[in-house]
Amino acid sequence: MKFHMPVKVYCERDCVKTYSDEWTSLGHKALIVTGRSSAKNGALADVTDSLNAHQISYCIFDHTEENPSIEMVMQVRDMGIRENVDFVIGIGGGSPMDAAKAIALMIYHKDKDADYLYQQGDSTALPIVEVPTTCGTGSEVTPISVLTIHAKRTKSSIPHRIFPQYALVDGKYLASAPKKILVNTSVDSLGHLIESYINLGASPFSRMISEYGMALWKDVKPALLSDHVTDEDRDRMMLTSTLAGMAITHAGTTLPHGLSYFLTYEMHIPHGQAVGYFQPGYVAAAAPETQAKVLELIGCKDIAEFANLIHTLLGPLEIAPDMVDTAIKGIMANERKLKPVPYEVTEETLRKFFEMAM
Amino acid sequence: MKFHMPVKVYCERDCVKTYSDEWTSLGHKALIVTGRSSAKNGALADVTDSLNAHQISYCIFDHTEENPSIEMVMQVRDMGIRENVDFVIGIGGGSPMDAAKAIALMIYHKDKDADYLYQQGDSTALPIVEVPTTCGTGSEVTPISVLTIHAKRTKSSIPHRIFPQYALVDGKYLASAPKKILVNTSVDSLGHLIESYINLGASPFSRMISEYGMALWKDVKPALLSDHVTDEDRDRMMLTSTLAGMAITHAGTTLPHGLSYFLTYEMHIPHGQAVGYFQPGYVAAAAPETQAKVLELIGCKDIAEFANLIHTLLGPLEIAPDMVDTAIKGIMANERKLKPVPYEVTEETLRKFFEMAM
Repeated sequence: MKFHMPVKVYCERDCVKTYSDEWTSLGHKALIVTGRSSAKNGALADVTDSLNAHQISYCIFDHTEENPSIEMVMQVRDMGIRENVDFVIGIGGGSPMDAAKAIALMIYHKDKDADYLYQQGDSTALPIVEVPTTCGTGSEVTPISVLTIHAKRTKSSIPHRIFPQYALVDGKYLASAPKKILVNTSVDSLGHLIESYINLGASPFSRMISEYGMALWKDVKPALLSDHVTDEDRDRMMLTSTLAGMAITHAGTTLPHGLSYFLTYEMHIPHGQAVGYFQPGYVAAAAPETQAKVLELIGCKDIAEFANLIHTLLGPLEIAPDMVDTAIKGIMANERKLKPVPYEVTEETLRKFFEMAM
Repeated sequence: MKFHMPVKVYCERDCVKTYSDEWTSLGHKALIVTGRSSAKNGALADVTDSLNAHQISYCIFDHTEENPSIEMVMQVRDMGIRENVDFVIGIGGGSPMDAAKAIALMIYHKDKDADYLYQQGDSTALPIVEVPTTCGTGSEVTPISVLTIHAKRTKSSIPHRIFPQYALVDGKYLASAPKKILVNTSVDSLGHLIESYINLGASPFSRMISEYGMALWKDVKPALLSDHVTDEDRDRMMLTSTLAGMAITHAGTTLPHGLSYFLTYEMHIPHGQAVGYFQPGYVAAAAPETQAKVLELIGCKDIAEFANLIHTLLGPLEIAPDMVDTAIKGIMANERKLKPVPYEVTEETLRKFFEMAM
């Protein structure tokens, strides 16, 4: 078994500014990859203030699409090459952070075309700093970059493993996030903790992280169910998400993530929500002692209580029967997501995942 | 709070050989730093077989002293420079692994003299591979190198933080270790877990590791108390020690380690044993809820049971009253070991540590 988590993580209020001496020294010109909300939540200002204070120049791409495509990555890569940047900063949720990794790879390999993204090969990339502003993806500590492949009508992670140099994790960026985003992304991080735990690739290292993360998530739950979210809640949500990212780095995700990509591509259901629907079914099919451990850690007395919780947080999954069939057919052919599941998976198993979500 | 653990850790049977493609590619000629027992336990043969198979040349220094001195480090550094090595492999307990880091630093800075070891400055070192053959130090994952300073009649960690590139952790190397070594080093790793936990520098990251490690140590305990140690026990001892190393990397050690250096230097008490004596006293002085949590995790019903366990494992500490006075005077002046203690420390507090050990 392996432990490898080389990202330097700072997880505290104002860490972008506090540790700016360190991370701004990664290069001479930064490419900032972000979406439109990073201006609202203060993260972009913290980053640019820090760069200005250290006289490091930068350019900004702030139109990252949700579920970034290969096409977008190549467009921003061209901008980075034109601007002669030597490091990349991703600010936002999974979309800009994942895109930042792919862009940093493709700027480094400037002679390669888009096919290189999905080819085996040298994964060296420009240095990367990630600043999460949602609490679900964990992308700030994973080497994973999931991109949308329109040609295949789905999302898939690139084979290159690209760790950021720095993860700057600050709960204050969640203050302006709509409640729905907090819920969807916190459910995504729960999915990371559960799928890495009920996983043939789990090791004592990853179980340590998953267990600690699930116990933290238990204390996130009341805030998700209430109208009152405190600073402490936001800090806990961010930390849980970062830990969940460390857990999937070591053990990966399985069926719920595999199924979610179809829902997100075909039905435009946000990623966290799509992942969350299948968690009760995924746990319910596990061995009784594993199931009991997960439920105890997240503070649910049984599977019914867990299914109710997800129902309350996300509402029911509304999906046509033929779409269920297509999704099941797709995942039954997805060797990579099936292989780590520690129990036998049949069409019937998967049909129950949907039934529990609907 | 910070998480930083860039060492690539492989923790499984035969990992030295299994992952030799990776770690032998660190350089062209290796300096192996070890002691005499690494020939017996098989670790040296696994390393040299791997180097030979990949046609990487090497030279061996196999006379590492227990508690390596600055003088020894400089002598082996000269050998490394003469032999033109470009990476360093430490095999053994804390002594060769800590020495390997200091030697790798001083070969890289070949124009510096021994004073540089204890000066602030560039900590770049040659790449390092560590192969532990005892289960206490955790040095394979820490950036810490503790050396003996004869001029000051004590041991002290150098200010440079030098992470190894690889930790190759294999329980099979414990098979030839005398029981006394297993006990002393496992007690050292318990000390790492406890001192990093009862520590103002503890964070959720370090607590996650300390708690998981203490729970693992609970299952190491029966083997330490019996005459029958299985392969599974040895694997668990190794893993616990590596986790304990990750915990001190994040939160450090405190009073028991500070006191142990004196006992080791002046009374030649092995490091782990010297550290172990003070654990019950260190826990007994902590806040009731912290105390209860530690005792629960390591499986002791109260402090008396913990003190008895240490007594059974190590025997009583035999020390003259004037030595106790000197040790207490020394530690009361050791700002670095006092500062992280989350409770008030008086001479009386420390005297109780000794009383519980005697």
